Amino acid sequence: MPSRTQDLAAVLEANSAFYTAFSQRDAAAMAKLWASHLPVVCVHPGWPPLLDRADVIQSWQRIFANPDQPDLRQMKERAFLLGDFALVVCLEVLPNATLVATNTFARESGSWRMVHHQSSPLSMESLEEEEPPAELRN
Amino acid sequence: MPSRTQDLAAVLEANSAFYTAFSQRDAAAMAKLWASHLPVVCVHPGWPPLLDRADVIQSWQRIFANPDQPDLRQMKERAFLLGDFALVVCLEVLPNATLVATNTFARESGSWRMVHHQSSPLSMESLEEEEPPAELRN
Repeated sequence: MPSRTQDLAAVLEANSAFYTAFSQRDAAAMAKLWASHLPVVCVHPGWPPLLDRADVIQSWQRIFANPDQPDLRQMKERAFLLGDFALVVCLEVLPNATLVATNTFARESGSWRMVHHQSSPLSMESLEEEEPPAELRN
Repeated sequence: MPSRTQDLAAVLEANSAFYTAFSQRDAAAMAKLWASHLPVVCVHPGWPPLLDRADVIQSWQRIFANPDQPDLRQMKERAFLLGDFALVVCLEVLPNATLVATNTFARESGSWRMVHHQSSPLSMESLEEEEPPAELRN
């Protein structure tokens, strides 16, 4: 039985693997990250929600095949453990925008697999006017 | 021990209670819906993530106090049960925009309480150009 600290580290590692797959445009690695048996939900910025694993995997293939897809880097990730589930909230910094992402993981066959991703733009106003919450400052 | 069907009904009821609290601008009802002991995460459209229960509750008080806050209605909700955790995805229809929301609930002291909400705009393009996924058609 892994400890809470081990679980949190494993969840943050799964979250990093997600962004590594993204930056390497590695559709096979991305597919492996998503849960195989549990339901999955993916909400790309502006898109209708994808609720079927095949649609989710295909969406990443389409995104990775797009030569205009900008690189992004994740920042300020925070993980919250809720038993066999975990929420990770982080910022996704693109050249011309910053997004807020929630990545949800569940324990499936002993590994932390992604069951949900939603990413949506942070308004420039909130970046300029407000101090980020203390929890998000590095 | 509630059955899967009872759990799904209870989760959808909690999701409806969330939108009832929203439409009635009922900050007390909204506060009761959010988990008390588990960590909570709330991402309003364009806002930085709120990771502290007091900040989440206060954000709803501010939203409800805003006379320009438009009414919304939820549509096409779909719930996914993952043990003691549940994801609900739905559309939030405002007069001039449609948002996609993920509402995440966890069992806390026998009730389904909200632990996460993220709501973000659906692009008009995706509304006009794409068929919604089969699962989201009513």
